[in-house]
Amino acid sequence: MLLDAERARQLCHAVFVESLDTPLHIAEVAGEALVDANLRGIDSHGIGILPYYLGRASAGQIVPKAEPLFVHETPATAIFDAQQAIGHYSSTLAMDAAIQRAREMGLGAAVVRNSTHNGAISHYTIRAARAGVIGVAATACAPYVAPHGGTRGLHGTNPISWAFPRHNADPVVFDLSTGHSAVKVREYADREGALPPGQVLDVNGDPTTDAKKLPDGWLLPVAGHIGYGLGLLVDGLTACLSDSPVGRQIPLLHETSGPYHGSFFALAISPHMFAGTSAFEDRISSLVAQIESHPPQDTEEPVRWPGQRGWEMHRQRLATGIPVTEWRWQTLVKELSAYDVTIP
Amino acid sequence: MLLDAERARQLCHAVFVESLDTPLHIAEVAGEALVDANLRGIDSHGIGILPYYLGRASAGQIVPKAEPLFVHETPATAIFDAQQAIGHYSSTLAMDAAIQRAREMGLGAAVVRNSTHNGAISHYTIRAARAGVIGVAATACAPYVAPHGGTRGLHGTNPISWAFPRHNADPVVFDLSTGHSAVKVREYADREGALPPGQVLDVNGDPTTDAKKLPDGWLLPVAGHIGYGLGLLVDGLTACLSDSPVGRQIPLLHETSGPYHGSFFALAISPHMFAGTSAFEDRISSLVAQIESHPPQDTEEPVRWPGQRGWEMHRQRLATGIPVTEWRWQTLVKELSAYDVTIP
Repeated sequence: MLLDAERARQLCHAVFVESLDTPLHIAEVAGEALVDANLRGIDSHGIGILPYYLGRASAGQIVPKAEPLFVHETPATAIFDAQQAIGHYSSTLAMDAAIQRAREMGLGAAVVRNSTHNGAISHYTIRAARAGVIGVAATACAPYVAPHGGTRGLHGTNPISWAFPRHNADPVVFDLSTGHSAVKVREYADREGALPPGQVLDVNGDPTTDAKKLPDGWLLPVAGHIGYGLGLLVDGLTACLSDSPVGRQIPLLHETSGPYHGSFFALAISPHMFAGTSAFEDRISSLVAQIESHPPQDTEEPVRWPGQRGWEMHRQRLATGIPVTEWRWQTLVKELSAYDVTIP
Repeated sequence: MLLDAERARQLCHAVFVESLDTPLHIAEVAGEALVDANLRGIDSHGIGILPYYLGRASAGQIVPKAEPLFVHETPATAIFDAQQAIGHYSSTLAMDAAIQRAREMGLGAAVVRNSTHNGAISHYTIRAARAGVIGVAATACAPYVAPHGGTRGLHGTNPISWAFPRHNADPVVFDLSTGHSAVKVREYADREGALPPGQVLDVNGDPTTDAKKLPDGWLLPVAGHIGYGLGLLVDGLTACLSDSPVGRQIPLLHETSGPYHGSFFALAISPHMFAGTSAFEDRISSLVAQIESHPPQDTEEPVRWPGQRGWEMHRQRLATGIPVTEWRWQTLVKELSAYDVTIP
């Protein structure tokens, strides 16, 4: 089936507002983040995880009514305590605080502690780029990813993203999970009958491709020491800068009795305070033009700039709807119905 | 042979001060950067490239007496025009400008245009960490690295580095060339008789392991789309933010008649303005302790934090000297003597 974006928004409204009694201004931010992920093709962070929010809210780990508090702020910096608010909302507030500071000071950064799952991280850097500034964001999460050469989880999949503004055009946007994704290795196993090699360790820390060993296993960093180094950068900018639990101090996902203890970092850089916004965007346009005219290895597969494919998908899905398999839709309806959600 | 660090410094002095007539305050910064690279085991950016600086200075592309100019500055930001000064010097000034701003505002960033080769990038982020702030740095250079799926150079090996300060201990420091290194693929070819697979394209853009095709060939980004995305991040932060030539606008290395057109980005973040320096360093110490006690895959190969091996080597080489093969030393002496350098 093809799900209309408007209906996807209504589904988010049914979950966040009608079922969880989330204040409208918070629910709209969360719903927009989920639908935006689906539209850009990041279905792993779209409406398919609505049941997750219901489960975490019911366990008390996500607090739908919570408003993040400013712990400390200066002209260029801010720290929030998210108070276990819905992660999309606290992350949006943090990025907005960074953007506002960058407009005034050239640079702005905000960190969030006591945060929860915040979806597709590129959502926040795109927000910065649409506001005319460079956005950088990073999230620390539950420690399922082993360090390079290690045998068990040390830090989270710790995604990182950046986006560059462009003249009247969609931003250049890159995002990267620094550890292999549990969702993606599971999808691979469903398709191929085994886990992808080099991505998962079993409970004893031995490399495995046996899908049965995934639930007790650990993930590996992407590209070995590169993902490891980037994952630690994320830990430093998020957990350490916000004085939040770091590494194995963060609870695993089945431990829902206490806080989720995610943390988030947002940085905005205003080209206006350097060589000027117009000079910056001209150089980015040149770079994009160099990429779009680059002779590819495979004539069927043009060289793309980061985000290009996502924006193409965004235009297509806005026009024709978000493809959802019948089986996925029925599973989602069943899971939501178990929480008494009225499906729009 | 084992070269004493002090003698390595004297060699730098002979080149920069005696041969190139570089002012002492500039020569000392450059020499210290080169010897620091050797001490930490990054020999590709140590005294072995002294002849390179003599060649570039003689071609007029590096100007040993040049002082970088402030183009524009604000309380949190700065742009320098390096005026083709020795790259280590302009990069150090930029990082110092970022550090000073971070101390006052919590964040500071500086960009440099019209720069030249600046050696091992981690030298600048370590400088920030030694000053008690988080350091991030990136350098854009000549376009030898193809975009993911492309057939010829688009941007430079564009290294990026970050470093975290620690309580009375060596910083955690990571650095990464976002494209495969010409020096390393050449060393591999000298050892193995062929180029490493998946790292080099020939002049036509076809993958090659034939070492004879390296001089006219191109390099690939590290880890495919990951290195590509990181390489573009570097272009955005350096060349675009400083309004400097970007991508193929930067001359290739044999084009020495005009400026080198490198660019540099330095960012400093003061934990003091977030949750406090002590809280930050406690969290970093916890992370380091978690890594040092982590059960490794291979009991002979402990899990290490980024920079750990470099600091071990630094201590050892300070004590016993920098190992240099007799062949390398004789080659260096011969190359320097061709420029009438008196070897100390």
